[in-house]
Amino acid sequence: MQLGMVGLGKMGANMTKRLADAGHTLVVTDLNADAVATASTHAQVTGVADLATLVATLSAPRVVWIMVPDGNPTEQTVMQLSSLLEAGDILIDGGNSNYNETLRRGEWLASMGIHMVDVGTSGGIWGLTEGYSLMIGGETEAVQSLAPIFESLAPAPDRGWGHVGPRGSGHFTKMVHNGIEYGMMQAYAEGFEILKAKEAFQLDTHQIARIWQHGSVVRSWLLDLTADALEADPNLSEIVGYVNDSGEGRWTVNTAIELSVPAPVIAAALFARFESRRNDAYANKILAAMRNQFGGHAVLKKDTPE
Amino acid sequence: MQLGMVGLGKMGANMTKRLADAGHTLVVTDLNADAVATASTHAQVTGVADLATLVATLSAPRVVWIMVPDGNPTEQTVMQLSSLLEAGDILIDGGNSNYNETLRRGEWLASMGIHMVDVGTSGGIWGLTEGYSLMIGGETEAVQSLAPIFESLAPAPDRGWGHVGPRGSGHFTKMVHNGIEYGMMQAYAEGFEILKAKEAFQLDTHQIARIWQHGSVVRSWLLDLTADALEADPNLSEIVGYVNDSGEGRWTVNTAIELSVPAPVIAAALFARFESRRNDAYANKILAAMRNQFGGHAVLKKDTPE
Repeated sequence: MQLGMVGLGKMGANMTKRLADAGHTLVVTDLNADAVATASTHAQVTGVADLATLVATLSAPRVVWIMVPDGNPTEQTVMQLSSLLEAGDILIDGGNSNYNETLRRGEWLASMGIHMVDVGTSGGIWGLTEGYSLMIGGETEAVQSLAPIFESLAPAPDRGWGHVGPRGSGHFTKMVHNGIEYGMMQAYAEGFEILKAKEAFQLDTHQIARIWQHGSVVRSWLLDLTADALEADPNLSEIVGYVNDSGEGRWTVNTAIELSVPAPVIAAALFARFESRRNDAYANKILAAMRNQFGGHAVLKKDTPE
Repeated sequence: MQLGMVGLGKMGANMTKRLADAGHTLVVTDLNADAVATASTHAQVTGVADLATLVATLSAPRVVWIMVPDGNPTEQTVMQLSSLLEAGDILIDGGNSNYNETLRRGEWLASMGIHMVDVGTSGGIWGLTEGYSLMIGGETEAVQSLAPIFESLAPAPDRGWGHVGPRGSGHFTKMVHNGIEYGMMQAYAEGFEILKAKEAFQLDTHQIARIWQHGSVVRSWLLDLTADALEADPNLSEIVGYVNDSGEGRWTVNTAIELSVPAPVIAAALFARFESRRNDAYANKILAAMRNQFGGHAVLKKDTPE
């Protein structure tokens, strides 16, 4: 079927290619003209300069998939499209928007008769070849009309995608997916560090990751990626242990708090990422100062060698 | 090759069958005569009544694999075998022994010229058909002589097993594997509870687990098992949320402490299991009493309806 794609970053560009390869017809745009030009080399893809042209080029009822960073870029794109689209059109937000924003935007669009469908999209850069896992929220009729798109993006037409509930529930489910991901990643990270720290055994973490890939209880796609990373750089000497977060972990913990669900592992994994970015943290200065006060324990002073 | 198998519980019986199917010759024993009789129905398996007969039946240099519960059962079995085996024989502990015990036992056996090889064995009841992941510690020559056994137990001859280091390192690696498993399981558990708790969306956790199996970042064997469990009993109404632990999580956290490695997620996952077994915990009584003292907050009294 025909659809518009707004945003040709890593995710949007790969999804455009996967959809075009599957025979869909795409009209695409991006703030970066080079990305538009690259995507347009595919026979199924027409690149345009702006949102107005994109909407004018599509046949009604239109389907526009936006794949731009969450927050302000998504907000601006939705607001602009809301004045260009017509009643009966469908706007799909496939990015990592906070589900509360999605609920607000969906209500606003619905007031103009525009359907909003939220698609939590997992798979990263591997999605192009392996397919994406799609968690879809929205009205049943709108979601069903988009089935050909989901069948092409998913790993196979009959699996890896599903309509999970009403508007907002797709992004909610993706948020929790990412929260789980934080916990799993931190569990592996701690385990591999314990293996590495046991110097008497001189363990080869790459070898162990490879062993675990086959038949073990902890085998997973994340472990596969870890094994590949350890093969490329066994001591991870080219990597700095500074771990960013892109928001879904925070939202998951906020949601756990809102729903009074204990989530100690996901919260600890999130806080471990914060910790990874600190150096000589104020909390640690406070602890060292207190130990010095009550027990006379030595503190390291600045410019004193350890 | 020929080997003895001591212990025909779920793990030992399945491993005996997998080895016998692969053409190895086994002499087996267990305290439970029925288990011995069942295993002996295989043409490649000879059942015997006790350890002395098992050792007498095997040709030197003997290979004896013990697969009994960790702690006292393993201790007793190793002690008995130490007086029956001869220099040059190999004793394999394939159970979940604490690696410190393995180091102690291995040293004792080495003083008599008996080689000890420790094999961390993962795969559970699925190992019979899918093969086991084997983390092997011990002297290189002894480990290499056992390659035909490991090749048959693993998912394939060339993968899923490896000699990770000296004596004790196999059990050490398996301990960390299980610690990681605790963290991963808790991450999924928290995520699924957050999905369930968001009542406005009426999410189907079984459907979401199935979607995540294909193309998502959190796909794993543990997720496959969770999806199957949710298919069999979508509300888990037949399951009580009381979670046991069999020791490796505790040892992993103890080891993290010994090595000064922060392991917040694995520790939190272990403590969550302890929490699952409590009802009206003393710590919570203390908290409620304190809030009452300083703020006059109401406390629930026994025999008062909530």
